[in-house]
Amino acid sequence: DFPTLKEWVAIESDSVQPVPRFRQELFRMMAVAADTLQRLGAHVTSVDMGSQQLPDGQSLPIPPVILAELGNDPTKGTVCFYGHLDVQPADQGNGWLTDPYVLTEVDGKLYGRGATDNKGPVLAWINAVSAFRALEQDLPVNIKFIIEGMEEAGSVALEELVEKEKNRFFSGVDYIVISDNLWISQRKPAITYGTRGNSYFMVEVKCRDQDFHSGTFGGILHEPMADLVALLGSLVDSSGHILVPGIYDEVAPLTEEEINTYKAIHLDLEEYRNSSRVEKFLFDTKEEILMHLWRYPSLSIHGIEGAFDEPGAKTVIPGQVIGKFSIRLVPHMNVSVVEKQVTRHLEDVFSKRNSSNKMVVSMTLGLHPWIANINDTQYLAAKRAIRTVFGTEPDMIRDGSTIPIAKMFQEIVHKSVVLIPLGAVDDGEHSQNEKINRWNYIEGTKLFAAFFLEMAQLH
Amino acid sequence: DFPTLKEWVAIESDSVQPVPRFRQELFRMMAVAADTLQRLGAHVTSVDMGSQQLPDGQSLPIPPVILAELGNDPTKGTVCFYGHLDVQPADQGNGWLTDPYVLTEVDGKLYGRGATDNKGPVLAWINAVSAFRALEQDLPVNIKFIIEGMEEAGSVALEELVEKEKNRFFSGVDYIVISDNLWISQRKPAITYGTRGNSYFMVEVKCRDQDFHSGTFGGILHEPMADLVALLGSLVDSSGHILVPGIYDEVAPLTEEEINTYKAIHLDLEEYRNSSRVEKFLFDTKEEILMHLWRYPSLSIHGIEGAFDEPGAKTVIPGQVIGKFSIRLVPHMNVSVVEKQVTRHLEDVFSKRNSSNKMVVSMTLGLHPWIANINDTQYLAAKRAIRTVFGTEPDMIRDGSTIPIAKMFQEIVHKSVVLIPLGAVDDGEHSQNEKINRWNYIEGTKLFAAFFLEMAQLH
Repeated sequence: DFPTLKEWVAIESDSVQPVPRFRQELFRMMAVAADTLQRLGAHVTSVDMGSQQLPDGQSLPIPPVILAELGNDPTKGTVCFYGHLDVQPADQGNGWLTDPYVLTEVDGKLYGRGATDNKGPVLAWINAVSAFRALEQDLPVNIKFIIEGMEEAGSVALEELVEKEKNRFFSGVDYIVISDNLWISQRKPAITYGTRGNSYFMVEVKCRDQDFHSGTFGGILHEPMADLVALLGSLVDSSGHILVPGIYDEVAPLTEEEINTYKAIHLDLEEYRNSSRVEKFLFDTKEEILMHLWRYPSLSIHGIEGAFDEPGAKTVIPGQVIGKFSIRLVPHMNVSVVEKQVTRHLEDVFSKRNSSNKMVVSMTLGLHPWIANINDTQYLAAKRAIRTVFGTEPDMIRDGSTIPIAKMFQEIVHKSVVLIPLGAVDDGEHSQNEKINRWNYIEGTKLFAAFFLEMAQLH
Repeated sequence: DFPTLKEWVAIESDSVQPVPRFRQELFRMMAVAADTLQRLGAHVTSVDMGSQQLPDGQSLPIPPVILAELGNDPTKGTVCFYGHLDVQPADQGNGWLTDPYVLTEVDGKLYGRGATDNKGPVLAWINAVSAFRALEQDLPVNIKFIIEGMEEAGSVALEELVEKEKNRFFSGVDYIVISDNLWISQRKPAITYGTRGNSYFMVEVKCRDQDFHSGTFGGILHEPMADLVALLGSLVDSSGHILVPGIYDEVAPLTEEEINTYKAIHLDLEEYRNSSRVEKFLFDTKEEILMHLWRYPSLSIHGIEGAFDEPGAKTVIPGQVIGKFSIRLVPHMNVSVVEKQVTRHLEDVFSKRNSSNKMVVSMTLGLHPWIANINDTQYLAAKRAIRTVFGTEPDMIRDGSTIPIAKMFQEIVHKSVVLIPLGAVDDGEHSQNEKINRWNYIEGTKLFAAFFLEMAQLH
């Protein structure tokens, strides 16, 4: 059963742990995949990605990125599939019930590291192509592949490659398909048409670069922690509403049509609450929950650097502290506008305190939100394919997290991007006992084949 | 020059680093001191303090506490001197300009670990006694010594010993003298008559025992960090005023007489600001600064456990966080009243947030403030002795920190306690290049001798 998936899962292509052994496995993984694509008849290039300097000074080679092309008929549309073959670390001792690198079927579930993230979906796409080959049918679309081996490590050097290939490899591409997230249900397929962005802020408050003793100085200082706690406390109220002036100005207005997409989604709130182990959410209805995860911004305070953070008691007045928080951005918020609004707000709050400390605000990361036009050809094709294979409408979903590659392809290549997940909500990406259901893997392969046919008809 | 101080400083009696080598040095130190006192004619007992279990399971012996008695004349007052002969760690490589364990005189300053904290002052007291012996004069007072070797490590097991000896060794004691802090000036002697207490609080806010990802959950949670930041932000305003209702109710009213003691103190604010490397204090006058360090409570926020505290960016929503802060207590604040006020205040703020998280407040440490009656016989004696030796009135000072031994003696032995520091403000206790000035050491010896004579007259 599933010999190729078994073979691929057996390769310990962990990109997170920067050690030579795993890098060797990554190179082996990319070579095996290149070989598979070649045998399929694709024109395959393995792009040398050079090497990577680690913070400790060590240098490690980056596994090649595979660029492959199958078919070049100018009368057909060209779909480019993005996938990755590296995986998160997996340690059999640490909660895995089976060997993470031995694909093991139990009750229709195929357990193994990378089974759902992302080796299974990559193979489903390849299997769909193979099906046409096996039936000696022409492919309804031209197919390109971009397959990398460093996604879990932040897609090292991928953006530079996409930029470089923009007018060559990507010039003929009409659509980009990614299949690297999950449904929000056990049985109902989904199409993902948007992700939130993220702006990450650090606010530093400094009195001096050395700590004080609270006995010797407590009572006469503008304490940096008191300033910082006031700054962080000015950001969001107890209902989750962000207090930065103007922050909601550019949030896309809610339409009736959009509300209907949330209503159509099946989400068992009770089960969701239980599996999250959360006593009570900020909102009581499915629609509000989904909207606040997907279409409204959120602000989270992550922590403080420089203060006392260990167990026990220490009577220190930290001399210099850095508060960290981020805002998840939604259409049509703009990263640089948000940066200005947050900075102005914090400066305003700080100036009212008349503190003699120095405050510095910096945005260390700014990722734009991504949203697609769900009336694009390939969205319609994907919906029809889902109806054909699953006999149901898909959940039209977004992702509250940022999927940087989706936004990257849209920004650099300027082509329509769609996320067509294959895995069920409980697949456990990044966790112990990652799996893909046998049913999802097989129906997913059918879905991709049906998608090719729909694309040909709609193009 | 100063052969005994040189010999004592040469013993590496570090009680902070729990390693056998330093413990051996501590035992040697206590044996040398016991021998010195015996040669002075004192009746000396070295009390076996047993051993100490460290968190790592290791067991280390505790150096003995020396109890010594010199004179037993019921017509005289009995003064008990407390001192310690253990020291903070010192590492020559780490900023020391001389070998920390070789007493080295440069420009009238005697550099060496323990020179001012506390070997020098202990020897000054012993030297004062020796002077009477050398002159073949009767001691004007009966003298007792309690000398320990674990002060820098928290006076391990000392309280139990004092409790046990309350009705034996301490029964005849009238006054207790400690000389273990510093003047607040370079040249003007001081008497310390009070210390602040401390109540240390932890406030835990918990959603669940696991963190969340801000992409997946940001927007729908009562985030523990938002609750905690609001709680911590409700404690103190930007002028340092504590916002806990009732907290100032029991603070002793300020009298004209007390204000005059602050006015009499010489403190160069500009120099203090520069040496503290603080741009601006909360207050502009010497009197306000001193009062807010000594006679008003202060609240410091120390940090947060459980949040993201490392360099860099992490998009985590901490699931469970513990905020830590403490209030320095002043007469006549009561530890358990403060505990109730703080707890009630935090519960009040938290309940208004309607958060579904759990909050737990606990006071993990409660040390009462200490204040002496500065019209006690020994205070008057110390003042007169200072006038005699230094030709000036002393600065009447307090300590913003807690000196647990002062409070301990007062609470267990119920006798008048006075702190008569000998060292100058820049002696650098606990720092690199600790020193005692040759002048302070010699005049300090004279001061103690004069103090004995004054005690005899005033008793």
